[in-house]
Amino acid sequence: MQTPGSRLAAMRATAPLVHNITNFVAMNVMANVLLGIGASPAMVHAREEAAEFAGLAQALTVNIGTADADWAAAMEETAAVMHDAGRPWVFDPVGVAATRFRRDLSARLLELKPTVVRGNASEILTLAGLGGAARGVDAGDSVAAAEAAARALAARTGGVVAVSGPVDFVTDGTRAARVANGHPMMARITVMGCSLNGVIAAFCVDQPAFEATLAALAAYGLAGETAGQRAEGPGSFQPAFLDALHALTPGALDERARIEAAA
Amino acid sequence: MQTPGSRLAAMRATAPLVHNITNFVAMNVMANVLLGIGASPAMVHAREEAAEFAGLAQALTVNIGTADADWAAAMEETAAVMHDAGRPWVFDPVGVAATRFRRDLSARLLELKPTVVRGNASEILTLAGLGGAARGVDAGDSVAAAEAAARALAARTGGVVAVSGPVDFVTDGTRAARVANGHPMMARITVMGCSLNGVIAAFCVDQPAFEATLAALAAYGLAGETAGQRAEGPGSFQPAFLDALHALTPGALDERARIEAAA
Amino acid sequence: MQTPGSRLAAMRATAPLVHNITNFVAMNVMANVLLGIGASPAMVHAREEAAEFAGLAQALTVNIGTADADWAAAMEETAAVMHDAGRPWVFDPVGVAATRFRRDLSARLLELKPTVVRGNASEILTLAGLGGAARGVDAGDSVAAAEAAARALAARTGGVVAVSGPVDFVTDGTRAARVANGHPMMARITVMGCSLNGVIAAFCVDQPAFEATLAALAAYGLAGETAGQRAEGPGSFQPAFLDALHALTPGALDERARIEAAA
Repeated sequence: MQTPGSRLAAMRATAPLVHNITNFVAMNVMANVLLGIGASPAMVHAREEAAEFAGLAQALTVNIGTADADWAAAMEETAAVMHDAGRPWVFDPVGVAATRFRRDLSARLLELKPTVVRGNASEILTLAGLGGAARGVDAGDSVAAAEAAARALAARTGGVVAVSGPVDFVTDGTRAARVANGHPMMARITVMGCSLNGVIAAFCVDQPAFEATLAALAAYGLAGETAGQRAEGPGSFQPAFLDALHALTPGALDERARIEAAA
Repeated sequence: MQTPGSRLAAMRATAPLVHNITNFVAMNVMANVLLGIGASPAMVHAREEAAEFAGLAQALTVNIGTADADWAAAMEETAAVMHDAGRPWVFDPVGVAATRFRRDLSARLLELKPTVVRGNASEILTLAGLGGAARGVDAGDSVAAAEAAARALAARTGGVVAVSGPVDFVTDGTRAARVANGHPMMARITVMGCSLNGVIAAFCVDQPAFEATLAALAAYGLAGETAGQRAEGPGSFQPAFLDALHALTPGALDERARIEAAA
Repeated sequence: MQTPGSRLAAMRATAPLVHNITNFVAMNVMANVLLGIGASPAMVHAREEAAEFAGLAQALTVNIGTADADWAAAMEETAAVMHDAGRPWVFDPVGVAATRFRRDLSARLLELKPTVVRGNASEILTLAGLGGAARGVDAGDSVAAAEAAARALAARTGGVVAVSGPVDFVTDGTRAARVANGHPMMARITVMGCSLNGVIAAFCVDQPAFEATLAALAAYGLAGETAGQRAEGPGSFQPAFLDALHALTPGALDERARIEAAA
């Protein structure tokens, strides 16, 4: 039987190449997060090469922070490559409520059927067209308030939707579950959500998206718990978090994952 | 009576959204610095959305490192939004002496009356048209040598000018003060000045710019002092600095701020 | 007689300004690496100013990760400035096998006779036209497999070629040597190779390129060894590495450098 720990081990056994088109703030940390957990990152966004590069990758993540018109085109072309090849791609609609450019781009990306959409409650509410109280990239809405939106969005994309928060909510439109791993300090440093996208994508390679997403969220949150115990603040949390991702064992993940089915 | 500590507390109470158009080198660290001190960062520079996003923000910072023609347009449009709305914006003319592109862009940005201009002595000297011995982004001139230039520049913009150095000099054209907090290690890691811009901007929200800038400089320098005591080198300084920003209390700031009026 | 330690001391004595056109993932870390070892970094890539800025710099590095057409033009113009001025420039063909855009750009940059080409075995094999098994930016080939390619490439450029790996191989087409300093953790965090380019460039200022490259590789690897002893994982390795670069003395480098001539 597959467990979160066995999914971690399976991901590490292949060290999948994850192609990321993510914002400038996240690039370095995200690459290190992927290396830390045991995957192979590549950050490639230029239209001159992104779609070609996607042909080499096992999975893709797209994050709309710091995008512009050229990037938007590369995102669409690249997501289309993954969609057509049946390979997983993860979409993060960061700050989607903030500008018309982000809303329009997100609407187009949704058409390309992301394997997983991951965002905070406000972002998922906005995406689902239910309106959100987003301010910048903060989460002004509670996870609970976004559960119905997440289910509707998953039904629309045919994929998984994950709502990040103190307790994460994950649904594929039919099933749903909550992941309680994590630490409050994760909200006090930047790009923790962005970097998580890559971990989800890596877990989704050759594994079912709903279960893989749950395992990825538990692994990530558990590393946060370990780091939170060692850190004296948000600065020391960051190296401790990468250390914890690297040291995380399948056994520890199976023992400490807090995943529960949701009604 | 308002003190540096009470200004820190006031800033944290509202956690203002600070919109930053800063260079690629600084983005991640600056976002973490803003989160660490207790503000809300957003890094948004694309012309497709920057000016619209500025409408959501309480303050703006503009830093001309790694800019290009598109960014320059976004900087001008965004600064104009803040100027017209009467909201604070901070201008960092990083490396302004190095290229014609930076000098021309800086001249246009000065027309938009930055609330605070912050730079090293060479940059302030260049901006004020007095000539500077800048080499790259280093400070080749002493703070003392830039005091008259800072006063003249403040008189021209109607705002505050802060000259960073071992002892900072701050003037609004009429008043002037020096801030002696800080640690030599702050000059041995990159983007410490860039990240400070965001802290100044956060303090300036709904607070008078001259006093807010002094409080921000003291808070930042004091966190540097704390980190400098704990760090073994420039690498360990960085997490220690974020930890110190996060742990800084209004009481400690009032006790240890070294701000003195200047003649 | 010049030793690796005396070359480190000579570099620090002038703190050369190293102009870097590098990928977004590397910019912050690379700047800190250069400051840590004792050089002066500047990250300038916009076509509006890059070639002009190069006129101020003592050395240049070019890394093709995250480039686009505009950056490519800036890279060529800037490398031409250094070539024509007889100042050193280092070329890193990161991921050159991955896309046509990278291969074409790399071919054009090679025409500008880089003082040093540094890459992993797969990248050097690709560059030399012998074919490589590159997957993304990983090194799929062994250093030994790339030695002949490195020699051929050096003969073609008239410069030095350095192949990074557990034991590095360096050749100027006639002479060759191996550098055994380093630590396995250096392969578990991102942009360690990218950042090394800057250190090589700094050492090459006013020093012969073959010997300077060997000294730079030994210094970098030795700092990695020190950090590896202190770190608990890839997260804590990073600050420990910068601390070690900063603390490295010429005497320690002379004592612990593991450089051997190769047949």
